[in-house]
Amino acid sequence: MLFTIYSTLARKKEIFTPQNAPHVGMYVCGPTVYGDPHLGHARSAITFDLLFRYLAFLGYKVRYVRNITDVGHLENDSDYGDDKLLKKARLEQLEPMEIAKYYTDRYHDMMDALNVRRPSIEPNASGHIMEQIDMVQQILDAGFAYIVNGSVYFDVIKYNQQYRYGQLSGRVVEDLLSSTRDNLEGQEEKRNSVDFALWKKAQPEHIMRWRSPWSEGFPGWHLECSAMGRKYLGDKFDIHGGGMDLLFPHHESEIAQSQIANGDTPCQYWMHNNMITVNGQKMGKSLGNSIMLDEFFTGSHPLLAQAYTPMTVRFFILQAHYRSTLDFSNDALQAAEKGLKRLMQAVKTLNNLQPSATDDNNIIKNIETECYDALNDDLNSPIAISQLFEAVRIINSVADKKEKLNANDIERLKKLFHNVAFDILGLKDEQSGNQNELLNNLVKMIVDLRQQSKEKKDWETSDNIRKQLTELGITVKDTKDGTEWVV
Amino acid sequence: MLFTIYSTLARKKEIFTPQNAPHVGMYVCGPTVYGDPHLGHARSAITFDLLFRYLAFLGYKVRYVRNITDVGHLENDSDYGDDKLLKKARLEQLEPMEIAKYYTDRYHDMMDALNVRRPSIEPNASGHIMEQIDMVQQILDAGFAYIVNGSVYFDVIKYNQQYRYGQLSGRVVEDLLSSTRDNLEGQEEKRNSVDFALWKKAQPEHIMRWRSPWSEGFPGWHLECSAMGRKYLGDKFDIHGGGMDLLFPHHESEIAQSQIANGDTPCQYWMHNNMITVNGQKMGKSLGNSIMLDEFFTGSHPLLAQAYTPMTVRFFILQAHYRSTLDFSNDALQAAEKGLKRLMQAVKTLNNLQPSATDDNNIIKNIETECYDALNDDLNSPIAISQLFEAVRIINSVADKKEKLNANDIERLKKLFHNVAFDILGLKDEQSGNQNELLNNLVKMIVDLRQQSKEKKDWETSDNIRKQLTELGITVKDTKDGTEWVV
Repeated sequence: MLFTIYSTLARKKEIFTPQNAPHVGMYVCGPTVYGDPHLGHARSAITFDLLFRYLAFLGYKVRYVRNITDVGHLENDSDYGDDKLLKKARLEQLEPMEIAKYYTDRYHDMMDALNVRRPSIEPNASGHIMEQIDMVQQILDAGFAYIVNGSVYFDVIKYNQQYRYGQLSGRVVEDLLSSTRDNLEGQEEKRNSVDFALWKKAQPEHIMRWRSPWSEGFPGWHLECSAMGRKYLGDKFDIHGGGMDLLFPHHESEIAQSQIANGDTPCQYWMHNNMITVNGQKMGKSLGNSIMLDEFFTGSHPLLAQAYTPMTVRFFILQAHYRSTLDFSNDALQAAEKGLKRLMQAVKTLNNLQPSATDDNNIIKNIETECYDALNDDLNSPIAISQLFEAVRIINSVADKKEKLNANDIERLKKLFHNVAFDILGLKDEQSGNQNELLNNLVKMIVDLRQQSKEKKDWETSDNIRKQLTELGITVKDTKDGTEWVV
Repeated sequence: MLFTIYSTLARKKEIFTPQNAPHVGMYVCGPTVYGDPHLGHARSAITFDLLFRYLAFLGYKVRYVRNITDVGHLENDSDYGDDKLLKKARLEQLEPMEIAKYYTDRYHDMMDALNVRRPSIEPNASGHIMEQIDMVQQILDAGFAYIVNGSVYFDVIKYNQQYRYGQLSGRVVEDLLSSTRDNLEGQEEKRNSVDFALWKKAQPEHIMRWRSPWSEGFPGWHLECSAMGRKYLGDKFDIHGGGMDLLFPHHESEIAQSQIANGDTPCQYWMHNNMITVNGQKMGKSLGNSIMLDEFFTGSHPLLAQAYTPMTVRFFILQAHYRSTLDFSNDALQAAEKGLKRLMQAVKTLNNLQPSATDDNNIIKNIETECYDALNDDLNSPIAISQLFEAVRIINSVADKKEKLNANDIERLKKLFHNVAFDILGLKDEQSGNQNELLNNLVKMIVDLRQQSKEKKDWETSDNIRKQLTELGITVKDTKDGTEWVV
């Protein structure tokens, strides 16, 4: 089965065919660095990390560009100088770039914790003002933008006469026009409410400003991705990804900008991850139900019953298909925590499994095929994970001597877990590390001492040891083959 | 004693007096991201991290700007299109920004490992081309630069008639003129060999290029620090730091640029950390004796007898005064490793010290005073550390019941270690962390089990336990007060 991905533009799954294999160019909308990263950031980053990892696994050489929005993040209905980042800057009496640096670091730290691979290039909007000015000029020269009071707006109505504004989102300009209120603050400069800013003249209170042929100001929000995608990946690249909340107007406007400036839409495949809901409601800062990643890791949010490790959060996200909504609940996260532990325990069991002289097991081969088929089918991680759990069942059954596997099948399973669980899904055993080895050795020592006291019929000591270990969160199981234990 | 720092420009120690206390603006030259960070990077970063931490300790609000040089790092005698970063990019067939991103991440990871606090703002040269172009234009407008074939050069001879080129480094323009060879490649465009490039026209093979009023090209290397320092810290800020190798021509040229563009030298205090030598020879890539930080951490360099932890490297660097040369040797690093362990062990001992009903100990008060006096005296970290070791001697002596301290003095010592060792010197106990607590509990369990077997006169078990612990690298000491142990 060939790798297929769902193209938001084509509205169907398509076989992935890069333009210059083995090279793949991929652009994903990164964070706006004026606040702490939340679960939504994690979902988008993990979705496209899965894609990045899978493409690498398939042998592609991927240049993955993920931007940092550190200026002028303007929203559709309030894009008149109301720069979120600056609001915060004035509030905290700080240089905007100081805030941007702080939250960029926070984002990086959280992404590292989630085992999200770092992108190949991570350009920031403030560092590409010239490229954005050039693009505005190109659009002006082509006649698809107009200047009012030092600001430049994209003429959506004119564009829509020749191309289709709405081809990605399915929106219709006429409907948009009738539904948008024309009298919102800052709308009065536009010829039409659907037009969007390419360049905004800075109001006197604006700290972040650059000179341009039109005014001292700052670029419109949609522009940075078009300009930076083009700079690092070329006029037309393979994949553009982002959260579904960016589909309109952000990505729709990117298409319009690239169509005029580059003569073509910016990419072959548009991919969008779905949103996270809390009890069925969209998660969002403005709704007050947004949980920061740091709060997950420390358990410090009223909605959280406990702390969840970064890998639990990652596993929770991967257990849903990226195009489905993912509903947050403590139950679901606790289930993910248990499932991940079971998976990681099975990997250890697998490494100690004794092979038998028996035939190849067709179920193992089948699990392998199903796993990769799922990934090839638009990155269906939940199906791939369920296949891994099928493997876990067999591994535990073999460990319990209820089933047998030959050396060949054991190797096959090891490879499957190595590739799918670790390389592609990007899971990791959070217990591992250098200290862990020492820790394991110490527990082994204690378990052996307990065994010795049992042999000496010193039940008091052996019971005490078990009790103390339990208090430290270490469970000891006596099996036919000796003593097993789990931290 | 007031905080004094050695000003390279004044050639003497001066009382540190910021212009807008409690705010302090500080700029330090960061890495060129075309290679892996080495010991020299660590020394500069740790020196100014000590300054950053000490200023914060003194109550200043510091805006610390450390740049990332990701374009056009031109060297004095070969600044004709010979961009180091691009050389590597062509070699590896990569987009320059992809290499820059990789090595920026490497630098950040190493600095995190060394417990170097992150700067407040970390601007990159490629993201501030407009600001650099503006500064070139200002210098041109002032008549201190000239254009040749699309490149712009700073007129050092003209500048030197009015100001003094060489005021920082002590060099004399006439001497420089007679010693510089005029016929080096790329020198022919300059009016005089001492002039330096503000803007270079890009040769056809140059990938990194930006439009400018003079040519498609890239900024001269000295320019980025002047432009970014001014942007984020103002025309004249408090401290400019960097390695002594940057004193000339880089910082000398920065002074000239700012003098003309801003009407003043860029800062109040110039501070320079000295170099690292290997057997008395300068450490440098071109000399083949440059050891990368990663090689220290893994022990994978022929000159290294073993791996050294990041904290050992940090402690080794802090054990020399920043203005002295620091000679690398395995002996010195091993001594640092031992010293750091001794210090950290003493902190643990201190936390368990029993107070006695005795008078205040004047020596403790004296150690405290000497420690802060040393730091106030141009950040004399080796003296401060030697005072901490004096405290260690007393702590161990009290633990051995040879001396006594009252509760007041014990608190005083705890505060001293907290402030000086951890907060200001930025040392940390590498054994600490979450797992460490579990580890400690497990060792405690084993030590208790050993105690029990001794009480039962089960010498075989108790000896075995000791032997096994030793094999795991854990040393058990029997003292009068019970059992102590060190991992």
